[in-house]
This record gives sequence, structure tokens and C-alpha cells, in this order.
Amino acid sequence: MASDAATAEMAATSLCDDLEPATTLTRIRDVLAAGAARVGERVVVGGWVRTGREQGRGTFAFLELSDGSCAATLQVIVDAAVHPLARLTATGTSVLVEGEIKEPPEGTKQSVEIKVSRVLEVGEVDAAAYPLPKGKVKLTLEKLRDVIHLRSRTNTIGAVARIRHQLACATHRFFDENGFLYVHTPIITTSDCEGAGEMFQVTTLFSQADKIEKELKENPAPSDSDIEAAKVLVQEKGDAVAQLRAANADISAAVAELMRAKENVSRLEERSKLKPGIPHRDDGTIAFENDFFKRQAFLTVSGQLQVETYACALSSVYTFGPTFRAENSHTSRHLAEFWMVEPEIAFANLQDDMNCAEKYIQYLCKWLLDYCWEDMEFMVNNYDKDAIERLQLVSSTPFVRISYTKAVELLKKVTGKKFEKRVEWGIDLASEHERYLTEEIFKKPVIVYNYPKGIKAFYMRLNNDQKTVAAMDVLVPKVGELVGGSQREDRLDVLKQRILDAGLPLEPYEWYLDLRRFGSVKHSGFGLGFERMILFATGMENIRDVIPFPRYPGRADL
Amino acid sequence: MASDAATAEMAATSLCDDLEPATTLTRIRDVLAAGAARVGERVVVGGWVRTGREQGRGTFAFLELSDGSCAATLQVIVDAAVHPLARLTATGTSVLVEGEIKEPPEGTKQSVEIKVSRVLEVGEVDAAAYPLPKGKVKLTLEKLRDVIHLRSRTNTIGAVARIRHQLACATHRFFDENGFLYVHTPIITTSDCEGAGEMFQVTTLFSQADKIEKELKENPAPSDSDIEAAKVLVQEKGDAVAQLRAANADISAAVAELMRAKENVSRLEERSKLKPGIPHRDDGTIAFENDFFKRQAFLTVSGQLQVETYACALSSVYTFGPTFRAENSHTSRHLAEFWMVEPEIAFANLQDDMNCAEKYIQYLCKWLLDYCWEDMEFMVNNYDKDAIERLQLVSSTPFVRISYTKAVELLKKVTGKKFEKRVEWGIDLASEHERYLTEEIFKKPVIVYNYPKGIKAFYMRLNNDQKTVAAMDVLVPKVGELVGGSQREDRLDVLKQRILDAGLPLEPYEWYLDLRRFGSVKHSGFGLGFERMILFATGMENIRDVIPFPRYPGRADL
Repeated sequence: MASDAATAEMAATSLCDDLEPATTLTRIRDVLAAGAARVGERVVVGGWVRTGREQGRGTFAFLELSDGSCAATLQVIVDAAVHPLARLTATGTSVLVEGEIKEPPEGTKQSVEIKVSRVLEVGEVDAAAYPLPKGKVKLTLEKLRDVIHLRSRTNTIGAVARIRHQLACATHRFFDENGFLYVHTPIITTSDCEGAGEMFQVTTLFSQADKIEKELKENPAPSDSDIEAAKVLVQEKGDAVAQLRAANADISAAVAELMRAKENVSRLEERSKLKPGIPHRDDGTIAFENDFFKRQAFLTVSGQLQVETYACALSSVYTFGPTFRAENSHTSRHLAEFWMVEPEIAFANLQDDMNCAEKYIQYLCKWLLDYCWEDMEFMVNNYDKDAIERLQLVSSTPFVRISYTKAVELLKKVTGKKFEKRVEWGIDLASEHERYLTEEIFKKPVIVYNYPKGIKAFYMRLNNDQKTVAAMDVLVPKVGELVGGSQREDRLDVLKQRILDAGLPLEPYEWYLDLRRFGSVKHSGFGLGFERMILFATGMENIRDVIPFPRYPGRADL
Repeated sequence: MASDAATAEMAATSLCDDLEPATTLTRIRDVLAAGAARVGERVVVGGWVRTGREQGRGTFAFLELSDGSCAATLQVIVDAAVHPLARLTATGTSVLVEGEIKEPPEGTKQSVEIKVSRVLEVGEVDAAAYPLPKGKVKLTLEKLRDVIHLRSRTNTIGAVARIRHQLACATHRFFDENGFLYVHTPIITTSDCEGAGEMFQVTTLFSQADKIEKELKENPAPSDSDIEAAKVLVQEKGDAVAQLRAANADISAAVAELMRAKENVSRLEERSKLKPGIPHRDDGTIAFENDFFKRQAFLTVSGQLQVETYACALSSVYTFGPTFRAENSHTSRHLAEFWMVEPEIAFANLQDDMNCAEKYIQYLCKWLLDYCWEDMEFMVNNYDKDAIERLQLVSSTPFVRISYTKAVELLKKVTGKKFEKRVEWGIDLASEHERYLTEEIFKKPVIVYNYPKGIKAFYMRLNNDQKTVAAMDVLVPKVGELVGGSQREDRLDVLKQRILDAGLPLEPYEWYLDLRRFGSVKHSGFGLGFERMILFATGMENIRDVIPFPRYPGRADL
């Protein structure tokens, strides 16, 4: 071993000389942020040409370069002597260039620009074929969804990506700072967080059927007569053994032959059961016991029930992961796959839950104001002039807290607007009611709590009035409901009754009931739809534009 | 509206008085960390009893309380006068107590303890029924997997949860600090990251079939004679219209009747097509065009191909999400659902890729040493005495970089060990080879690069020798391969040829080829199996114990 090591060290010493040296890249954000302080420095920058134009009768070109590190572009100047200009100026061209940071001519708005001395690499673009047209002719957001693999090169989708990133950062920071543990709840689940929605099924039955079909084509299943013949052989081999034994002769070879013949029968019988297609039980139903997990499995609609098991052990926990709804929704507010943030807090009642939700949402808004100003300005200029004001309002205003009953009273008194759905105690508030409460009546975020039990899930804690449950929804301007949460029913007997009242069987929830059987604690939690939060922050109108790869009925590109 | 607002403000002022006040909880971690500094302070703490014992002939009890905020427990002392002691001492009991922080008697190892003045809430446990036995009798990790909903209450799974949390935190911090954007690649995908493994299919065909079956039971499909009768009615109604028209009479009512009759025929014809079971095409294959996404869709095996679209626009990006393998693996190293971290960097070659991987892994190790010392000590004492040393080694040692060809030469010279799989240039290194390189030969992390193209995926960049590709694997002691990565093939023509050579069709990869058609850049990335990293850090042996809800063949509990 010692010699292994010695040889190896020698071998390793001069190892990387067959590797291209590393690239020392400077991000455009850093070049622009340093501004005049780095003038004169030589840097290597890489990016994609947003706009390029030849100037001075083709003696040099200006390229506006973006590398996604910030909303702004960097102006780089290339002389015709350095590189053929026509190969650089098409929108979408990638370049890796070396050059010197310069102060731009007075009166221009660039903070600095780069005078290129070497063009290191170029990825050309055939402008006629490029799906993202140059300059003023912009594709609509809807059209951009058809070029999902290139749309991140646009200013809008780039800005949304940076805002989304910062909101994810802020989420993890907030919960970590407040002592929450990040728990990865399962994506594939055999539990149903009732009422959340239709589920996708996860299966290998189709691919198993494909495999069997191929296998049977190559090697057809044995017929009954094949099996019969094999059985006859067993009989013969058995007889042979019996005869030898009667003759007191050596039977070992004959026994071995008998065993082989028997094995052959088992193998043939096993293979004769192979049937093409999806396996069915005798009663005609599908035999899910043959599926990968030996039962039906689904994509999660919420990690709440599972994360409760961690909250009832580690106190403050949260999930941040994808969730799924197999609903035939074609609205601008629904996706089949979306991300949810779901904190769950032990020893916390509904008021603690509200405090957490309020603090979290305010933290997110403040974070964007602190770290995403440039992208937020882009949103204000291009999509929603109120976007920054909304963040400022929400981050600095205590949320109104009002019971469902009082909210309904207020809405019933409204005379200035006619709602499509009539307001009555007992209804599930519609988006129009929610937005009216937050946008018109209070003009700030509103938390509505204590909803009628009939419209809420079984796991929400029954209040003493026996009519309402300790649920709460956070409503914000622009999107309405941003957060839904509740104190969970922690009393075993009440929870059992609520499950039965919901028409559900107890058996699948036994593990959930165990949390109430053994060291039950009051606990609360909520869910925040991450894409809803991005819509709220950016003012974008369609949820399909704030997730990188939107999934909805009929569409799962890439 | 003004009056809406006025009413509302009034209504909201005295709003929350029907809500239980918030809980002001102090975490056990904070109590213990402050130590003597907070002696004399009154606090409320909540947690679960790890061990409880009555003392002084039943006049008081010691409870060792855990709330998951740290590995250590807090000792609380309850007098019999404060609460019936027998209800508090069973392992697993939850308590919320108020009391004073005291210095413990000299000679004990507690930093501080709590003298309880009020027991605010108790969640009792029937010790005989509690699945996690008390004290010394410990369930094995394997048995704990059968009580997945309670196992987070054990010291081991609690420690793993905190380490996992910190590794996730560190991951997001590292990439954010280095200018990477977090991109959520899709979970449901219609692309196949070739070679990664078998895929789960996502479908609503089974539930659709269920719905149709129920619907047909309630309301059977029309028979041919039903449809015939409806057609006869259309004929009659048509004749009636014709007669009225001939008589110059008012036909509007008759026309309306005719329309209704025609609609009825369409409806019946539509319903007559409803068939129970999975829909099939005429050729007998399954009609996936009827599925939710109008085609076959799968759970992702890797976000790499999709995240490349973002790297080729925003430069430095990463994913951190669940990935899936429908493989019939029953090993201690494989899961059907696991989490992966996949950075992708534009303008980066293989050396840049290695630098990033090395920096990232070192950052993770350093982070655990800084923020998880207590839990790491628990691991050292209970599972792997080398765990902390390994983190120290890896965080402080430059990784050896050696080409596959040289690594094979070294392994062929090994005399001290006989490998199960013979080493020859061209083989995929097995775990035994990888571990021998990192554990025995170099005794530190090793990056092996430039693998034979035949054993690697089509998207890896072909080297000039035409025999190897710019791939790299990071090998570490204890687990072997922790990271796999490569420079990606950025040349359109070479990539096309590699796809064809792999026996794959071009059409599904057209979007991927577009990234090379339009502003192609050199770029590189890698994937780190998050659970592998936890195994490496903790020294745990089975991957099923380092993810909260393990999924493997036959098992998807909860």
C-alpha cells in the first residue's frame, strides 16, 4: 500500500497538464457595480449579445452584453481588426472576450464599458433562424411559452428568474434564522392530504407491460401442451429414480435429472402466467400490487401531513418542494406542478401561526427591496407600476386580522360593488371577495380566521363554538389568497370524528392519529404557494411565466 | 368605499380578542447555550420527554426534555404539588412548562436546569402502547423504518435531520455567494436524460378510467337503438320544419326542437364512445394522447438538460430538487426518490467544473464543522468514529486530479488487493476501485477525469483523442463517487453525431440542439447526490436512514 501511495503521488503531481486551464471570468454585475473603481483593469467577460451594431463605417462595433448576473447590460467595443464584426452583432450571439474596463464618453448612461483586445470564443447565430427576434419586435409572453428553452434569454424571464432565486434564498434564510429545520417531505406518496385536489398516479405498470410484450415476442409463452410435455418428463424421470432405488442402484445422477425436469416445469408455469398488457385481478380491477411500490402511489398535493410527523418531534420545521394537482384548470392562476412552502410549528396556536406567516411575508418583501431593486424597477416599468409600492406597503404594515364571521358581515354591507357570488355565512370566500377585503376595504394585507368547518379540511382544529375551525387565510392585494393555514386538531377523539364526518376511512390515517396518541401537542402551520408569491411580487399576470417549466393540461415541454 | 374602510377599521380594531394569545416559547438550544447567563429567568419551554424518573419517594420528578432544536436534552424538575408526576414521566410524553432557569447542583453535567412552576400542557403517552421503547432497549435502524412517522423522535434521526438541514442551508449559501441562480427544473418531464436510469410514468389514465366506469354504472352508455331512435326523432323534427316552411308558417319553435333533437344525437354518440378501462388505439397500444399531458410523461431522473437552458442564458445556475429512478435496487445506496444538487456553469471548462465541485464539497464539510459540531460528535460516538476527521481532511486538503487512463494504470499495478471486477482500460470503475483510489492509494479526495466515451452519456464533450470525453467523478472516502460531472458537448455537429451514435432519435433533442445552434457556449456542470453527501458526512450505512421518507421497491410509507 505504501508503494501504491508513492507511485500515485508521483503520478498525480504532474497530472493536470493535459487539462485546459481554468477560465477566470468576471461577472457583468461585478464590472458594473465597481464602476470607475476598476477602470484600467483587464478582465474576461462572457455573455450573449442583446443588441449589436456596427459603427464608424464598419470599423468597430458596439455590443450590449448580458450574462444574466444582473438586469443591466454591459457595453463592449470591438474593433474590426480584432474580429470580423458581422459575426458578432447578431442578437443571441455568445462571446467570451478579454478587454480593458474604460470610462465611457461623457454624456452616455453606461457606468463603464469594455474595450476588447481579444475575442476568445464566439457562438454564432443565424439571425434569420433565431426564434427570438431582435430589438423592438418582441414576442408576447404567450408566444415565448412555445420557445421555453430559449425564453430565459429575455429581459422579463431573466428578471423573474432572479426574483424567484432571491425569494427562495430569503425563504431558507428566514426559516433558518428562526430555528426551523428544512424537511424534505416525499414527492411520491401513498397518503392523500384530503381536499387539496386531484392526484397524479405514479406507475411502472406501462413500462412493465412493454417489457413483457417484448419478452413474449422474442420468446413466446409456453403452451399448455409444452407444460404437459414437461410434466410427462418429470413423471418419466421420477419412474427412473424409483426403479433405480428398487434395484438398490446409485440414484444420484437420476435424482439430479429429476430436479432439473421439475425446475423446468416451474419455470414454464411461471412464464405461462406472463400476459401482455396491464395486469388485472380476477375481478377485473387493475392489479396495483404488481406496481413498483406494490400499491397505488401518487404525486403529493401537500407535504403537510408528513411534515407534521417532524414537527411533533423537532418542533419547528418547514418544507419547500414541488406539489401537484391533476386538475383540468386552464386559468392564469393554476399549474399542475408548482412549489409550496409549508412551515409547521409545535407548541403554536393560531395566533402564533399568523405571526409567523406575517413575519415571513414581510421578510420576503423586505428582501426583494434590499436585493432586487433593479429587477423590481424593471417590473414597475414594464408590467406593474405598483409592484414596488406594494412590497413597501406589505413589508411595513401590520396585517389586519378579522374573523370570517366579521369579514362576511363587512362584505354583506358593501354597496359599491356587486359580487358575482352572493356573500352568505358558510360560503367559501371567492377571489372577488378576498381581493375586495384586502384591496378596497382595508387596503392592506388581511388575515381572515375561524372559517366554517364545513368548507375546511378535517385536520383543522374545531373551535369551541363547534361551528368554526381555527383556520386562517392571508389575503394580499393583487393575488388575493397567498397563504392558507390552520391550527391542527390535536385531540385524538375529535380528530377521529372529523375524519369520519368527512366520509373518510380511519385506517389510512392511523399513523396521523398516532401523533395524537403519543405525546400530542398543539401545533399549527400554513402553506404559501411560491408562484403566487412571485405573481404578487412582480405583478406578472400569468403563473405560467413565473415558473421555469410550466406544466398544465396538455403541456409538459422538455 | 370610504365608508367600507371606516367600518372595517372599526371592526378590525378589537378583532383578535377572540383568539388565544400567542405562545412565547424559548428553545432548549437557547436555554442551554446561554447557560449561567440566564439563571433566574422565567421561561416557557416545550418538548418531549426522553427519560423521566420520579425521585425523593415521589415528591418530585426529573424529566429529560428534547425539542429537536439541538442534540442535548434539558433537565426539568417538577414537584408533585405542581402536577401528578405519573402523567409526565413516560417516554414520549409532551409537556409545555413554565419555570425558572437554575444552576444545577455542583458535580452534575447539565449546564442549567429548569425548576417548573406550572405545567401548561401535557400530551400523555400510554407507555405500554408506545412503539418507541424507553431507555436502553433501542429499536434497530431497520425496525425504525417501520415506524417512519415516529422515528424522528430518536436521537439518531433527529441528528441526521439537523445535519441534513445544515447541508441544505450550506448548499444554498454556497451557490448564492458564488453568483449562481437557483432554478426549479421540472419534476414531471417529457425528456429523458439518457443513461440516467429507468423512469416512473406520471398518469391520470387510471383515475380517468375509474371515473368513466362510475359514470357508466350510474348512467349506462346508449345502445345503438337508443341512437337510432334519436336519429328518427331528428328526421321527424326535420320533416315538421319542412312542412311548416312549405306552408309559409312560423318555423322558429319547430327549428328549436330540431336543434335540440340534433344535439341529443351528438350527445348520445359521444357517450356511446365511452369505454371502461384504459383507452387503447386501434393498433392495440395505449392511447396516451388521452392522458393529462396528451403524451407520456415521466418523473425526472436529472434536471441537467433542462437547467442547461438557463445556464445558456443566465450563466451560473443550479438545481436542488428530487429525482427518481424506477429501478429494482434493494441496496443500502439506492433510493427510488432522492435529492440532487446540479450546478451548471456557462463559459466553464472541465477544470472550472472541478474547481467548483471541490470548493462546494469543502464548503459543506467546513459548514458542518462550524455549525453541527454537537451532532457530529453524536455520530462519532455512535456510528463512525472517523466522521469528524473525514470532514476535517476533506475540507482542508486539495483534491488529487488524475485522468482515468492514469487511474487505471495505478489500479492495475495494485498487488495488495484482488478486485472482484478486473481493471482494464474501458471499464466503468466499480465502487471497489473508486474507494481503493481515494481510501488506500491517495487517502484523500480524488477527481478522476477524461473517461472512455463508450461508458459515458452523449452530452459529454468529446476530447481531441476521439476516445475519451471531458467527464469527471469526485471520489471520497467512505462512499466512493460523490459527484459526477462533465464539460458538455457544445459543438452542434459533434453533438448530433453523438446522439445518433447512442442509438437515439434527434427529434426529442431538437430543443437541446438549439442551445448549440444559437449562441453556443462552452459549459460544464455536475450532480451531487444529496443523500450520498449525508452518508459521507455522518458515516451512516444505509441511505434509507438519511432521507425522512425513503422510497424503494415495495415501500412508500405515508
